[in-house]
Amino acid sequence: MNTTQKIIDKINSPQDLKVMDINELNILAEEMREVIIKKVNTTGGHFGPNLGMIETTIAMHYVFNSPVDKIVYDVSHQCYPHKILTGRKEGFTNSEKYLTYTGYTAPEESSHDLFKVGHTSTSISLATGLAKGRDLTGGKENIIALIGDGSLTGGEALEGLNNAAVLNSNIIIVVNDNDMSIAENQGGICNLLTELRNNNGKVKNNFFEALGFEYFYLGEGHNIQKLIETFSKVKDTNHPVIVHIHTQKGKGFKPAEEDKEPFHWILPNGLDHLNDAPIQMPEDYNSLTKDYIEQKVNEGEPIIAITAATPGVFGFDKDFRNKMGNHYIDVGIAEQQAVGMASGIAKNGGKPILCVMSSFIQRTYDQLSQDLALNNSPATILVYWGGISGADATHLCTFDIPLIANIPNIVYLAPTCKEEYIKMLDWSVNQNEHPVVIRVPMCISYSGCEDLTDYSILNKFKMVEQGKDVALIGLGSFFDKAKEVKTILKTKLNIDATLINPKFITGIDSEMLNSLKQNHKIVVTLEDGELDGGFGEKISRFYGNSDMKVLNFGSYKEFTDRTPLNELYERYHLTSELIVKDIEKLL
Amino acid sequence: MNTTQKIIDKINSPQDLKVMDINELNILAEEMREVIIKKVNTTGGHFGPNLGMIETTIAMHYVFNSPVDKIVYDVSHQCYPHKILTGRKEGFTNSEKYLTYTGYTAPEESSHDLFKVGHTSTSISLATGLAKGRDLTGGKENIIALIGDGSLTGGEALEGLNNAAVLNSNIIIVVNDNDMSIAENQGGICNLLTELRNNNGKVKNNFFEALGFEYFYLGEGHNIQKLIETFSKVKDTNHPVIVHIHTQKGKGFKPAEEDKEPFHWILPNGLDHLNDAPIQMPEDYNSLTKDYIEQKVNEGEPIIAITAATPGVFGFDKDFRNKMGNHYIDVGIAEQQAVGMASGIAKNGGKPILCVMSSFIQRTYDQLSQDLALNNSPATILVYWGGISGADATHLCTFDIPLIANIPNIVYLAPTCKEEYIKMLDWSVNQNEHPVVIRVPMCISYSGCEDLTDYSILNKFKMVEQGKDVALIGLGSFFDKAKEVKTILKTKLNIDATLINPKFITGIDSEMLNSLKQNHKIVVTLEDGELDGGFGEKISRFYGNSDMKVLNFGSYKEFTDRTPLNELYERYHLTSELIVKDIEKLL
Repeated sequence: MNTTQKIIDKINSPQDLKVMDINELNILAEEMREVIIKKVNTTGGHFGPNLGMIETTIAMHYVFNSPVDKIVYDVSHQCYPHKILTGRKEGFTNSEKYLTYTGYTAPEESSHDLFKVGHTSTSISLATGLAKGRDLTGGKENIIALIGDGSLTGGEALEGLNNAAVLNSNIIIVVNDNDMSIAENQGGICNLLTELRNNNGKVKNNFFEALGFEYFYLGEGHNIQKLIETFSKVKDTNHPVIVHIHTQKGKGFKPAEEDKEPFHWILPNGLDHLNDAPIQMPEDYNSLTKDYIEQKVNEGEPIIAITAATPGVFGFDKDFRNKMGNHYIDVGIAEQQAVGMASGIAKNGGKPILCVMSSFIQRTYDQLSQDLALNNSPATILVYWGGISGADATHLCTFDIPLIANIPNIVYLAPTCKEEYIKMLDWSVNQNEHPVVIRVPMCISYSGCEDLTDYSILNKFKMVEQGKDVALIGLGSFFDKAKEVKTILKTKLNIDATLINPKFITGIDSEMLNSLKQNHKIVVTLEDGELDGGFGEKISRFYGNSDMKVLNFGSYKEFTDRTPLNELYERYHLTSELIVKDIEKLL
Repeated sequence: MNTTQKIIDKINSPQDLKVMDINELNILAEEMREVIIKKVNTTGGHFGPNLGMIETTIAMHYVFNSPVDKIVYDVSHQCYPHKILTGRKEGFTNSEKYLTYTGYTAPEESSHDLFKVGHTSTSISLATGLAKGRDLTGGKENIIALIGDGSLTGGEALEGLNNAAVLNSNIIIVVNDNDMSIAENQGGICNLLTELRNNNGKVKNNFFEALGFEYFYLGEGHNIQKLIETFSKVKDTNHPVIVHIHTQKGKGFKPAEEDKEPFHWILPNGLDHLNDAPIQMPEDYNSLTKDYIEQKVNEGEPIIAITAATPGVFGFDKDFRNKMGNHYIDVGIAEQQAVGMASGIAKNGGKPILCVMSSFIQRTYDQLSQDLALNNSPATILVYWGGISGADATHLCTFDIPLIANIPNIVYLAPTCKEEYIKMLDWSVNQNEHPVVIRVPMCISYSGCEDLTDYSILNKFKMVEQGKDVALIGLGSFFDKAKEVKTILKTKLNIDATLINPKFITGIDSEMLNSLKQNHKIVVTLEDGELDGGFGEKISRFYGNSDMKVLNFGSYKEFTDRTPLNELYERYHLTSELIVKDIEKLL
């Protein structure tokens, strides 16, 4: 048994760092690396970003005086070293507490965390606000925004830079440049950072100096001594400063250093299966989409798959990206650009298919409305992961229906099975009248029969089974839930409920809804997302002037945070049994 | 009678320019200037931006081959010269046709207009899409994005630049730099453009070259000969190019050259009243807000008024801005930054009050959700102009309720009169629990009695008059309409309707709504905005399981385009008489 006390054991707050010498700090870094690798391999989580930030984090906390000095993390999926140093070490060293802390900064956990963040490109704007608040109230603290090179491609970060540059008081922007976004970084900013790295920070045209920042470059981003020297130089600056640090994503874990993308985030025990043969995945909506795109490209269609920096979510691996060539583009973490560009492509003969996660479609409302919908550009947008989940508060996917479905002109479709999905996708790509969004379900279903629907006839719901008394309208991924409810209604109450697959989120089939009035007392809507502003409320409004009772099922207007799905289903009455109970009360 | 044919008379399409010599083009510019001044002074409209773009537009159409070559305007409020040259001259020369064409690019008017735009910072993204569509389909045309220096401060434009820089094919971005946004331009980008102008395009750190563009500078932005030479150099380029042109906003109309901000947009006959004594404006929500801010600042409160480049909309004139000093900030056309910064300020002891037009709050959904609401930052946002109007399709203000009110944690308030507004504003500024948005009505009303409401008790509606059978819930600016309906119901049908002022847009007063079930048959909601995803639907959902009939009044989900308000009120059944008729049908 090794009874030697480790350096990490001495760390309970950033103050404990300040009495250590450089040798101890270096040992600490390696100890932190070890616990992070072990912890993340157990629970899953962001891997490469955290390994790359250990030395920078130690040096920041050595030089600055958090929480008086304020460090704002961008995305904050690189904050594990920060959590270890700010009183939350046990969440990484004690396996029983591995799940105690979130994977993002969380003010409720520690005063060292300023904001709950998880979307990208926000740290500079938030920091300019902290700086302005400080200046208004006579504070003197340092404000530090940490941002990765990938996050610098997002509009809010660039708006933030434009403002930070003229702040005329203390603000320190640390650019953590590991030459990677989640996949390869993109665009002119990526190229200029490369040029700066290749020339030790000295280039003909310095982007940051052009904006008005004082600029510092440190190539050795894992050298704690030099990091401390660099941060010491800028501490208490009275003007806006950029500290550009070259780090290595995945530092200290060789496979992650060599192939960064698959180690951005790993599954539990992911490191134990590095040499396993690739698993043959069953068919899913990712493979269907990729196959469709590939087939159409091979047929000579001017299709182009677009992603905003998350190709992995859709299974767009390197092989696929290479094969697609010009028919694939990653615009960086820049959803506004993605939608604007898609609109332009559609207006000039191309066939854009933009793939985006529900949570991140939030980053581009106005482009959906103005660039796309107002211009009726026939682009196709595929929204993935839409639905209630046990996700972090920062990555909820319950808001896309209220966001998208209330914008005029957009046709938002909710397939319930493979056959419908393929038909909808193909219709969307081949039409020229509408911006079309498709809510891609998480889990695949099959109807077993070809979908012959003409989707150019908008807002036509599908009557799946005509019954009476109760009509169940199950939207998209909740159609199967409606089927379950129908079965229970029959067995428990001998009710032959009507079953409807609405398919269209953005409109109402008035004819069908009116016909239900003849022999139905209750209409039930089921949607996998927020009730407020959602699909069901449109049905409630429709029946407002009639005797029809309407029950809307979906999620409440709230930010849940890693709440287990079954708990949410109980809370929202979304189990089939609870739905039946609520119906029963009304009968 | 002057029978000499003018040069402008010969212009029916850009082709007609190409046979003219430089002398004729110069005369044409002056003739266009004359008709624009006369026309805009008659109808009102964007003045300075169009006077500044005449020569550039002539030169662009001389060199490029529109509509094969594609010119994308940003905001497009500088497109009058373009309209004159592309077959729509009569809309400017013939006073009877002054209202024929919109003030923005409009594809339905001409194939020379690519997109309907009116919000800012979109042209580069849209142009990258056109370029990508061209490259996918084997086209060869030039793609030109025109963008002003002010619009370059917006996130979508910066995301667009990052992508355009690496396009590896033809794209020409014309930066129309008149050293002004609507008010003064802001930020690091503004400073670097100034440096470029002051040094004839030659500086140590060229921002555009840093991103990877080939860069051309032309200081003489009103010299048609030089403009033609410059555009000729970049025509058919095979790589991304910036053409940075220094122009003068308001060129050729001396008062507008000397004081640019008041001439950005002028009222009908605005030029005829330049020397009138300033009109003493009656009290309005602008003056109330300014007075409140000024008073609190004078009392030493760390208040800061924030605008995203539209200070004039809120009456933040130069005098006010100067007086406020550090207590005022214009972040540029950068609503994402505005919200992120407001959140940061609120988290560090400041009291931010962000003022923004309803149409432009659309440019920042994710920051409202993530930077602000998820963090419960106690910032105050004032949304102006929310409501149905005869505005251009690009500037509708009907979508803010669906946008904002379905985000968790935000408290969205709808005052109906001065007294409530001031009480809400003061409560918001002095509390520390919630992000608060207030929908500032267009027209002032007075209740005549002090508002003593404690707004920290959320979602409590105000029972204004307790009646029976019919309950009228009039939200914000439509409360007065509810009062009118009540009066007609009494006189016409002898119904003593209940009158409710809900005040809270983001929540439901379940207790009050339940109590209405006792002796009411119909609940009517009135809101000045889109029904889909709006306030009324929440009430419909609430009553879905009851016998209560609910009628929701508001606007439909559609982009209207300069449709007169009375026509819209007819269409949406929003006159008091039509509302009463609809109620009558249900009785």
